[in-house]
Amino acid sequence: MNATADVAVVGAGPIGLAVAWRCAQRGLRVTVYDPAPGSGASAVAAGMLAPVAEAYFGEVALTGLLVESAARWPRFAAELSTATGMSLGYRTEGTLVVALTGDDLAEAERLWTYQQRLGLPITPLRPAALREREPLLAPRARGGAYAPGDHQVDPRRLVAALRAALDRCGVPVVARHVDELSTIEAGTVVVAAGCGAGPLTGLPIRPVKGQVLRLRTPGGGAPGFRHVIRGYADGRHVYLVPRADGEVVVGATVEERGDRAVTAGAVLELLRAAADLIPEIAEYELVEARAALRPGTPDNAPALGRLPGRPGVVVATGHYRHGIVLTPVTAELIADLVATGAPDPALAPFAPERFGAREAVAQWS
Amino acid sequence: MNATADVAVVGAGPIGLAVAWRCAQRGLRVTVYDPAPGSGASAVAAGMLAPVAEAYFGEVALTGLLVESAARWPRFAAELSTATGMSLGYRTEGTLVVALTGDDLAEAERLWTYQQRLGLPITPLRPAALREREPLLAPRARGGAYAPGDHQVDPRRLVAALRAALDRCGVPVVARHVDELSTIEAGTVVVAAGCGAGPLTGLPIRPVKGQVLRLRTPGGGAPGFRHVIRGYADGRHVYLVPRADGEVVVGATVEERGDRAVTAGAVLELLRAAADLIPEIAEYELVEARAALRPGTPDNAPALGRLPGRPGVVVATGHYRHGIVLTPVTAELIADLVATGAPDPALAPFAPERFGAREAVAQWS
Repeated sequence: MNATADVAVVGAGPIGLAVAWRCAQRGLRVTVYDPAPGSGASAVAAGMLAPVAEAYFGEVALTGLLVESAARWPRFAAELSTATGMSLGYRTEGTLVVALTGDDLAEAERLWTYQQRLGLPITPLRPAALREREPLLAPRARGGAYAPGDHQVDPRRLVAALRAALDRCGVPVVARHVDELSTIEAGTVVVAAGCGAGPLTGLPIRPVKGQVLRLRTPGGGAPGFRHVIRGYADGRHVYLVPRADGEVVVGATVEERGDRAVTAGAVLELLRAAADLIPEIAEYELVEARAALRPGTPDNAPALGRLPGRPGVVVATGHYRHGIVLTPVTAELIADLVATGAPDPALAPFAPERFGAREAVAQWS
Repeated sequence: MNATADVAVVGAGPIGLAVAWRCAQRGLRVTVYDPAPGSGASAVAAGMLAPVAEAYFGEVALTGLLVESAARWPRFAAELSTATGMSLGYRTEGTLVVALTGDDLAEAERLWTYQQRLGLPITPLRPAALREREPLLAPRARGGAYAPGDHQVDPRRLVAALRAALDRCGVPVVARHVDELSTIEAGTVVVAAGCGAGPLTGLPIRPVKGQVLRLRTPGGGAPGFRHVIRGYADGRHVYLVPRADGEVVVGATVEERGDRAVTAGAVLELLRAAADLIPEIAEYELVEARAALRPGTPDNAPALGRLPGRPGVVVATGHYRHGIVLTPVTAELIADLVATGAPDPALAPFAPERFGAREAVAQWS
């Protein structure tokens, strides 16, 4: 299309689209390549913006990036909504962690105690306080916690809005599958191809399958609960994300396999855990069951920055379960890098070359 | 289409199509009307031909008709396959009744003892004998029974073959919705419109919703079990019907409502009961979840014969959960009636006027 763009972005998921948008806003000429925009992990993702509830042991650098990106979300959402006139379904009621049994409570408590020690905003709640916030919760819930800063957005609306924003900037999204970076003419190539980034870059990106259900309230009204619910239900983990339009997203499995089949066992376990937490959902319609592949990395953190040994290639991938929350910070730091040539120090822990170093360590053991 | 057909059949489910086929074979000129052939209950039905396992207390006349129709199935299937060159997926491995708990066994035993007293072929099996027949059954199954004459057919293949057979006979299927019988020109009008027969005839036909799942083996090969499984699983009833092409049908709910929504609770209960009986199905793909409306009557038996007060109108509807097994006998007795004008005595217990008599009884109480 463009003889030579300043920037070519490979991949039109939220990350690629947002990188393109931020680059275009800096005056760069951008082209995006994707045979099926928005058809990857984001089409299935629930859209939890959960820097606190997703702060896991041993992932301090990643937690810092999640917190930073979540802090950028309100402005990012407002700017994108204003630019396009479209709603992203951004909601700020916050997240309730809910533990069904004594064992579940012990597991959940161990994690939120760690999150509190990091100074993150999460407050334990007794069962009565939980039910006061969400009367539909199963009466047997033994306890939980409230993370007021863990918000949500609708990833399908996010993709639609980003595409509209690119349209307004005159950035083309070319329906072309890129299987070799050398076939792309551009000053800088940004690889934001999710699981497809592995073969393109040689980085250790692997598919991690997630199965997700979409329910709908019988009458089409808003669900009877407003918070994102992150449940521990008899040893099973499940989340329920209520949308204003009547949708409830229930997810997700985490499976080390690369197919997209929806299995009876996964649907059974997701529905069982969800109905154990909020029995009313048994009456909701099951309107979709779908699987997608998250781009996982060896340390669960994304690969952000220049690709070693490949001048002119920048990667923004490996976002695993955090692609939606990490969209603003990824787009802004990568656009900075492309525009100025200088990487923000915040990118250092996520540099792609760390996987090379990790292989060297592995050789010693 | 035809200026005046001898017979107009309203409804192109298995009953209407088979009636039309049998009428055409007797030299009658036939036209079938349906805006969406094969889109009603048969599109969702599992296709169990179960005169024995479906012989319930207090339904002796219906049981007799089920037995008679099941006896006609082998010849009907062979004739239809020969006429069309199409397979119906007719399988004769028989049915296993399986009870998971002691309570389930007590409930199942009470019914098969009744069925044995009627002289029907069903044989109790100890757990070891059950598992010898189907090694994939859950080890905890407490007992069961074998009904060798309860076979299966694939209802979607049945509809496709009947349509092909009508094509070969030159019987048109007109895509028209009939909302008034008086708008149809024909010597005899046969109403085989399932739940749609209520408004057309004034008979007390009500919708009884059934939700059904279709699974598929991961590799596409045949499922690991060959019998139809009718399970009692912790108080829940479920069946699993294995097809040679890798499909497994899991059903069905029985709900007194007229919508076709698929609900989370029904899918959960069906999958839970099915996986409790045959744990391996957890690995199978869930490829379809769908609801349909069975045409129910006050006594669960069909309405077969002349419509009182409406000369020239014959009804063949209200088959409830038995439409597939009752297809041969319904088609043959109704075609006889239309061709000869004389009802077979076997039709007497199913005459539509019995619902009028029932209303009179109700007035006395």
